[in-house]
Amino acid sequence: VTIVQGAGAAAEKGNYRHFMQKEIFEQPDSTARTIGAYLNVLNQTVTLPEENGEAIDWKEITSLQMVACGTAHYATRVAEYWFEQVAGIPVKTDIASEFRYRDPALPRTGGLAIFVSQSGETADTLAALRYCKAQGLKTAAVVNVPTSTIAREADLVLPTLAGPEIGVASTKAFTAQLSALAAVAISAGRAREMLSRDAEIRLVRALTELPRLISTTLALDERIEALARDIAKATDVIYLGRGVHYPIALEGALKLKEISYIHAEGYASGELKHGPIALIDEETPVVFVAPFDGLFDKSLSNLQEVAARRGEVILISDEAGLRAAGEAPAHRIELPDCDPFIAPILYSVPVQLLAYHVAVEKGTDVDQPRNLAKSVTVE
Amino acid sequence: VTIVQGAGAAAEKGNYRHFMQKEIFEQPDSTARTIGAYLNVLNQTVTLPEENGEAIDWKEITSLQMVACGTAHYATRVAEYWFEQVAGIPVKTDIASEFRYRDPALPRTGGLAIFVSQSGETADTLAALRYCKAQGLKTAAVVNVPTSTIAREADLVLPTLAGPEIGVASTKAFTAQLSALAAVAISAGRAREMLSRDAEIRLVRALTELPRLISTTLALDERIEALARDIAKATDVIYLGRGVHYPIALEGALKLKEISYIHAEGYASGELKHGPIALIDEETPVVFVAPFDGLFDKSLSNLQEVAARRGEVILISDEAGLRAAGEAPAHRIELPDCDPFIAPILYSVPVQLLAYHVAVEKGTDVDQPRNLAKSVTVE
Repeated sequence: VTIVQGAGAAAEKGNYRHFMQKEIFEQPDSTARTIGAYLNVLNQTVTLPEENGEAIDWKEITSLQMVACGTAHYATRVAEYWFEQVAGIPVKTDIASEFRYRDPALPRTGGLAIFVSQSGETADTLAALRYCKAQGLKTAAVVNVPTSTIAREADLVLPTLAGPEIGVASTKAFTAQLSALAAVAISAGRAREMLSRDAEIRLVRALTELPRLISTTLALDERIEALARDIAKATDVIYLGRGVHYPIALEGALKLKEISYIHAEGYASGELKHGPIALIDEETPVVFVAPFDGLFDKSLSNLQEVAARRGEVILISDEAGLRAAGEAPAHRIELPDCDPFIAPILYSVPVQLLAYHVAVEKGTDVDQPRNLAKSVTVE
Repeated sequence: VTIVQGAGAAAEKGNYRHFMQKEIFEQPDSTARTIGAYLNVLNQTVTLPEENGEAIDWKEITSLQMVACGTAHYATRVAEYWFEQVAGIPVKTDIASEFRYRDPALPRTGGLAIFVSQSGETADTLAALRYCKAQGLKTAAVVNVPTSTIAREADLVLPTLAGPEIGVASTKAFTAQLSALAAVAISAGRAREMLSRDAEIRLVRALTELPRLISTTLALDERIEALARDIAKATDVIYLGRGVHYPIALEGALKLKEISYIHAEGYASGELKHGPIALIDEETPVVFVAPFDGLFDKSLSNLQEVAARRGEVILISDEAGLRAAGEAPAHRIELPDCDPFIAPILYSVPVQLLAYHVAVEKGTDVDQPRNLAKSVTVE
């Protein structure tokens, strides 16, 4: 049986060396499928899949609690910004293992809890879901496996259509979670009358363009592979981001940790001076995830501080950002211009590619990194 | 002038080698002074300093927003658990540099915002305070400098009486912030009728005992100094904690980063299997901050996973916890038994001492670590 499974698995990889690589390159399709489940392209609006069944009355929601583990937790950290900005709902995100054991104080009315899990079987996330249901909260689940326990027990299922993910380090499931959550945020913003019709159309169009922009970004593969040969020599890497890109810095660091075993850590750029800048020297590459948006000036200031201390800066940005940064970054990764709303999804791709190529360069077992399991179904 | 200042500073250090060391050892006094400003020992109750002036009507508070940077942010992360458990108030904590730039969605009614800053001049925290005031939120500030800008602008000042802190890495200001926030949480719990009179007396007594327990813990100095000679050889260290000790793991890692330049990272123990366990090998010490409380079994399970992968485990716990862990930890630090309510304050002390002695062993400039300033008064 083992031999057959191995042969089958090898065949499924197609021309790719690893499942993780194949899954990174599937993201134009997996995001398009997921977005397609939510967007009504003709009307340029969002329809939640089960709105006719277990509808959420967004006008009644006064606070949103999101609970997840690992990579899925970082998806909720991005969504926190979206729901606050697009729908005006105060959001709290929690790590499931922390949430479930602390008997959290929950709002007495108007609370909605969203749980995110690729497998839909993550033990701590499931326990958190059951706690919230017992407390009388309305629950929704963003899951990739519609037959999973979390999908069955949540009031409302918000599916991701990433397809089966084999690589232990999550990639296409993460961008699918983000795509689904972005669509839900638009729906909430419209229902709460926080989004004008024009604003809704802008966000829907931005989401529609995402798959094409991911394709363009994947063409950076060789460029990032070359950079990875340099990063693979490091023992420590810092990832920095601001706003909605802070969780992408966390996710980039997690990816590198998981498969290359390099100690990477993500930090909010604004916290740099409150501690981590002490680590900066010529041995520590610092990856900035920073498109040319309203926070770019602040990020550039942090970038210059790092460069002034001879830190090796890798700037992942767009044409305008790279131009503004001048000669300070040692390495530049130029992504296509995009609407700021979808930028965190797009900027997930280069940090995935970087982790992947560093791991390949280091010769680790990319699809089955040491000590890790695909789904953490026990505590 | 420089010479006079230097001489003065040297004199102020007394018998201590560094200000940081002196400040760590001042904590029985600095916490006692701070607690004394809040506790009415005779009546075994808490009186907030300015309750007669700008009183907070805790019964009207439906959500609490806490904003700070760096070490002060970790104080709010501990307080998040206290306010939720003792006072039943949903709490959201935020890094000031993130909060201020994202136009956060705030509750329309019943919101209170608490800002924590040693200097009272932290630029991002001040900007966040102004934002909340402009949004009509009631504001309170936990500050060590009563004449500071943040103290002047907040509706209510909640002072810490740590005395001047000279070492760049915050120690006694942190435990004073925790002491003040613990007292405020008790006051809120009583006002909201979430605490029985017996429960209030238990928590007040626990706080009263803290200074003595810190004294006992400081006697571990030589033991931790010996351990530090081993840890100083590491290039990377992981700190793990659960519940209210998760922020202490974050703070322990930050201390080590700041002054020893070792790349230390704090993580919630329950997230270990979602990524960081891939980093574990015999070269990476893992510090568990885990008293024998209701979560100890879960922490012990994580500890055994690390030990099974030949990670070098340092367990900071109490007698019962160390006994339960048996031979799995390579190193054991035994703290006195204490009430779980004050445990995160007490467990701050050994992680400070560990960072201090590792830095001394490495020969870094403990009081003036590279790249860092005492107060971050610019963005």
